[in-house]
Amino acid sequence: MKTINVGLIGLGTVGGGVIRILQKHHDDFVRDQDIDLNLVAVATRSPEKAELLGVTDIFFPDVNEVINHPDVDIIIELVGGTTAARDYVFAALEAGKSVITANKALIADCGHELMALAASKGAEIAFEASVGGGIPIIGPLRHTLAGNRILSVMGIVNGTTNYMLTRMGEDMLDYDTALKEAQAKGFAEADPTADVDGLDAAAKIAILASIAYNTDVRFADVPVEGIRNISPIDLELAQEMGYSIKLLAIANRTEGGIDIRVHPALIPLSHQLAAVKGVFNAIYVVGDFVGETMFFGEGAGSGAAASSVVGDLIEVARHMAYREQITQPVWDSEGLPIRSMDELETSYYLRLCVPDRPGVLAMTAQVFAENGVSIYSMVQKGTHDNSADLIYVTHKARESAIQATITGIKETGILTGEPVLIRVEGAEG
Amino acid sequence: MKTINVGLIGLGTVGGGVIRILQKHHDDFVRDQDIDLNLVAVATRSPEKAELLGVTDIFFPDVNEVINHPDVDIIIELVGGTTAARDYVFAALEAGKSVITANKALIADCGHELMALAASKGAEIAFEASVGGGIPIIGPLRHTLAGNRILSVMGIVNGTTNYMLTRMGEDMLDYDTALKEAQAKGFAEADPTADVDGLDAAAKIAILASIAYNTDVRFADVPVEGIRNISPIDLELAQEMGYSIKLLAIANRTEGGIDIRVHPALIPLSHQLAAVKGVFNAIYVVGDFVGETMFFGEGAGSGAAASSVVGDLIEVARHMAYREQITQPVWDSEGLPIRSMDELETSYYLRLCVPDRPGVLAMTAQVFAENGVSIYSMVQKGTHDNSADLIYVTHKARESAIQATITGIKETGILTGEPVLIRVEGAEG
Repeated sequence: MKTINVGLIGLGTVGGGVIRILQKHHDDFVRDQDIDLNLVAVATRSPEKAELLGVTDIFFPDVNEVINHPDVDIIIELVGGTTAARDYVFAALEAGKSVITANKALIADCGHELMALAASKGAEIAFEASVGGGIPIIGPLRHTLAGNRILSVMGIVNGTTNYMLTRMGEDMLDYDTALKEAQAKGFAEADPTADVDGLDAAAKIAILASIAYNTDVRFADVPVEGIRNISPIDLELAQEMGYSIKLLAIANRTEGGIDIRVHPALIPLSHQLAAVKGVFNAIYVVGDFVGETMFFGEGAGSGAAASSVVGDLIEVARHMAYREQITQPVWDSEGLPIRSMDELETSYYLRLCVPDRPGVLAMTAQVFAENGVSIYSMVQKGTHDNSADLIYVTHKARESAIQATITGIKETGILTGEPVLIRVEGAEG
Repeated sequence: MKTINVGLIGLGTVGGGVIRILQKHHDDFVRDQDIDLNLVAVATRSPEKAELLGVTDIFFPDVNEVINHPDVDIIIELVGGTTAARDYVFAALEAGKSVITANKALIADCGHELMALAASKGAEIAFEASVGGGIPIIGPLRHTLAGNRILSVMGIVNGTTNYMLTRMGEDMLDYDTALKEAQAKGFAEADPTADVDGLDAAAKIAILASIAYNTDVRFADVPVEGIRNISPIDLELAQEMGYSIKLLAIANRTEGGIDIRVHPALIPLSHQLAAVKGVFNAIYVVGDFVGETMFFGEGAGSGAAASSVVGDLIEVARHMAYREQITQPVWDSEGLPIRSMDELETSYYLRLCVPDRPGVLAMTAQVFAENGVSIYSMVQKGTHDNSADLIYVTHKARESAIQATITGIKETGILTGEPVLIRVEGAEG
């Protein structure tokens, strides 16, 4: 049996979960993995956390003492963000130490550089916990599904927004009420921007696209729309039409390159992703031989993310202990182009707030016709204040054409509110 | 780059899929895995298949020529069954060659011996395709989820029966019609015994239990009931009560050992597994830190199973090519006892065919009371021929108590048909 010594930076909820797993299952890992995983150094900006977790004896006030600790073989970085954490991870790799991280922002920002540095130092960087919390997804993509060309990745990868959309649909809560409820339950942060504006999901889909398509895709490459303008009426209308509304993170392999984006989408109730409720996450993957697969589980939370961190830790420790060859993720061997959002072709749900008077429907329909966008269905719903909602669902159309349609309708001056555009995904034909 | 030479035994649908993947993605594997996977020898009892697949130049009429071929590094066994295939796999491992197999019957029958032999020879045996077709499940259990103690594994692991139950529920098809439809579509074999009687599912859950619980569980250890006595009325009644009926393969870690079984079960429509329709499979796994996860995909079919075979092939080839340490699955490090089915405690759905006359309800209810089985609900449905269906749903009860209840009711002599007992799974409380 070999001993592998671990240093842990960051003692937040996930860090606490990692400590609990290493305590509870230490002897199981000895028995089943033939490895003695030994936590020998921790650092945190809040020393009281070290006390709460009972690790004051291995607490170091200076992060660098953990990174450069002569006994430490592997560094777990759970600080998060792209400022201090970036320095810690680069420093650890520079020192030739392998790194396990849950830091999606960092990997989506400079994963390529980190992997290149790790490779040059004979070290490893692993980040299963950066996407989908406890859900095994990076491992399966890299290993079990390695025989496939991946064609599509489509995920509900943000629990906060999925909880909010679920509650808005179930009880017709408005956005603000759903957000407050999520905050009260600890599912949303005081500043919910990263979640509700889709930024968290964008970082995650950039990472998944890099792994799935062997291409260096970064956070900044992902067009993103959040859920702030979704109303309960949209969820109600979608339901009537046989759809659910989900914030989807999408990356498809297409002829023209990688089609990548994050936005709310209508998805048929019969689609496996539509059954994913509340804070749960799921990632739907299509490969050219495996066909459809889906990976479901808890996308956040102390135990779930810690499960993925320790899964990575065991794998990296085995590589070190038993001279298994380090298998860096393939990140840029294909280097596909990223397709412009304008080239997207899908169906659209467009809700327009208009005055409830004759001629308005004709006027808006005319703009669809001028832009060559074919209408599949239209519903008109009166609202309380002499205005109406016109809800159009289109046949497949180009993103550029639907955007021109919206611009054209705005220019008629008849809209009494911001139009709501939601793309339709996962439907046949 | 290293070259790894592969021998393939069995050119059925999965074998054909493996050849197609190796042809289509050979260069991708060179680029991304740094391995030249080279098919150098095939054997099949039907030489015309070698011709159809365009591999006559590497065809050997004698399987042993493939197994003992001096260039062959890894053997893929896709013959199936426990007779000839058993000899081939033992012979290959004896010769020190690693083996990839999709053979659930073989692994569930003598996986322990195979792994011991592989370990003694420095070889490896991999079998991701033996459970869940293309769904990554053995890989995630062994690696990403390795930080957890697994608490529960519950799967829809047989596509034939899931297709039949789906169609029986959707269109009120009876068992025979659903079976004929499945056969016509190629989802069921001419002799459907292994599928409809749950034997296929029993082999798969034995394998999953061995991996999840570090215990040598075999096919013969699994109590099994198939779906032959399920009628459309059961699916209709279940739906009314908010349940779906699925053939579930279950293995739970309990205080008294491993609770393992295969039988039809009522599962709440809100449960993630209830949304798994048609020939799709899904495996729901609960770990002590990760919480709930689910793995969904195509459980059968040429491409899906071949995807898992090639995923294993790449991993084993990398181990060989780059001296990565071979990681044998942990199979018996815990050696838990297997709990008797009598100790099961769950709710039960029990449908009784009785004459439609006064006193019958009281007579049956009396037997429940005598056996200490508490009734949650009862519905009586008249049928066309002066008889009735009494449908009881119980509170949680012991399996031994419900079996005694059924025996007692039979002894009253009032039943006009075989009682239908379906266990309830996945419900709260």
